Amino acid sequence: MNLVAIVIGLALVEYFVFGLLVGRARQTYGVAAPAMSGHPVFERYMRVHQNTLEQLAIFVPAMVMFGVYVSGSIAALLGLVWIAGRVLYLRGYVDDPAKRSTGFALTALPQLILLLGGIVGAILSTH
Amino acid sequence: MNLVAIVIGLALVEYFVFGLLVGRARQTYGVAAPAMSGHPVFERYMRVHQNTLEQLAIFVPAMVMFGVYVSGSIAALLGLVWIAGRVLYLRGYVDDPAKRSTGFALTALPQLILLLGGIVGAILSTH
Amino acid sequence: MNLVAIVIGLALVEYFVFGLLVGRARQTYGVAAPAMSGHPVFERYMRVHQNTLEQLAIFVPAMVMFGVYVSGSIAALLGLVWIAGRVLYLRGYVDDPAKRSTGFALTALPQLILLLGGIVGAILSTH
Repeated sequence: MNLVAIVIGLALVEYFVFGLLVGRARQTYGVAAPAMSGHPVFERYMRVHQNTLEQLAIFVPAMVMFGVYVSGSIAALLGLVWIAGRVLYLRGYVDDPAKRSTGFALTALPQLILLLGGIVGAILSTH
Repeated sequence: MNLVAIVIGLALVEYFVFGLLVGRARQTYGVAAPAMSGHPVFERYMRVHQNTLEQLAIFVPAMVMFGVYVSGSIAALLGLVWIAGRVLYLRGYVDDPAKRSTGFALTALPQLILLLGGIVGAILSTH
Repeated sequence: MNLVAIVIGLALVEYFVFGLLVGRARQTYGVAAPAMSGHPVFERYMRVHQNTLEQLAIFVPAMVMFGVYVSGSIAALLGLVWIAGRVLYLRGYVDDPAKRSTGFALTALPQLILLLGGIVGAILSTH
């Protein structure tokens, strides 16, 4: 489970950095808090951060479940794909919201495998 | 704890489906990313998804705490009520935001029992 | 780990109360759901709640990791600073968004120590 914890930690560092980018964009494009809109590029950074939060709510428990009931090493590998997918998602979305699909798929796919695999693993462990 | 894990997993599947409904509503009502408003029905789906994320932040750790310190079976039962409450919340909110109260109560109530029960259980286990 | 669980539970109670304050502000300032804007003070409460959710996504797993791999007692102490920092953040932000920095720093700092300490602890435990 150490590998699972390390990869979860790295994903949270990535998410923390995305939060810093939102703060920087808030200053760069002059969007004063508490406004959440006002400049399209700021809104893209904000949406990337927000969407990553939405994904983390599934990712973190699914990593743990898959790690406990299926395999810690495979969970860690899928988690690394997830982290890379988020980088592509950020780059694509900030460049053009229409280009966010590839990065999204690269996070949604490993995440679904982790979640469904974790559920199946938990069910098979019940007897 | 297997039952707790399974119910958490099912709640995350429900939340994932709510996310798909937001994406579908985005297309149906022509709200292009990164906009988060523009059509009332889209905004309702978006708020249901967002509110479910807000609840999950309490639900998942509270399920684990209640499962560890009080009872895994009762946690699982309360979690199933939570999952059903979210379906009612979705139906009510999309139909009319004023109708979201029943579904909200059916998620807030089991969630509070899980959270407060988990804290009390943890305190009683400390000696 | 009991102390870690109790402090996580208290942070979630704080977050739950912040959610109640958003609901109250929604009524006080006449912002009907699903609207997320319409009155500056409502928006401040809403942003405090939302930002706390954004921080919790890091805080909860980081508390567990630090508690498992480094020290449960230190994790609990850092968590109490985090909880106090959020109260300052709420007070500062509602008073004036420009005054949110101190409370934010008092949550971001312990949170970063928890996260980075937890990752380093997990790496050192791998052999």
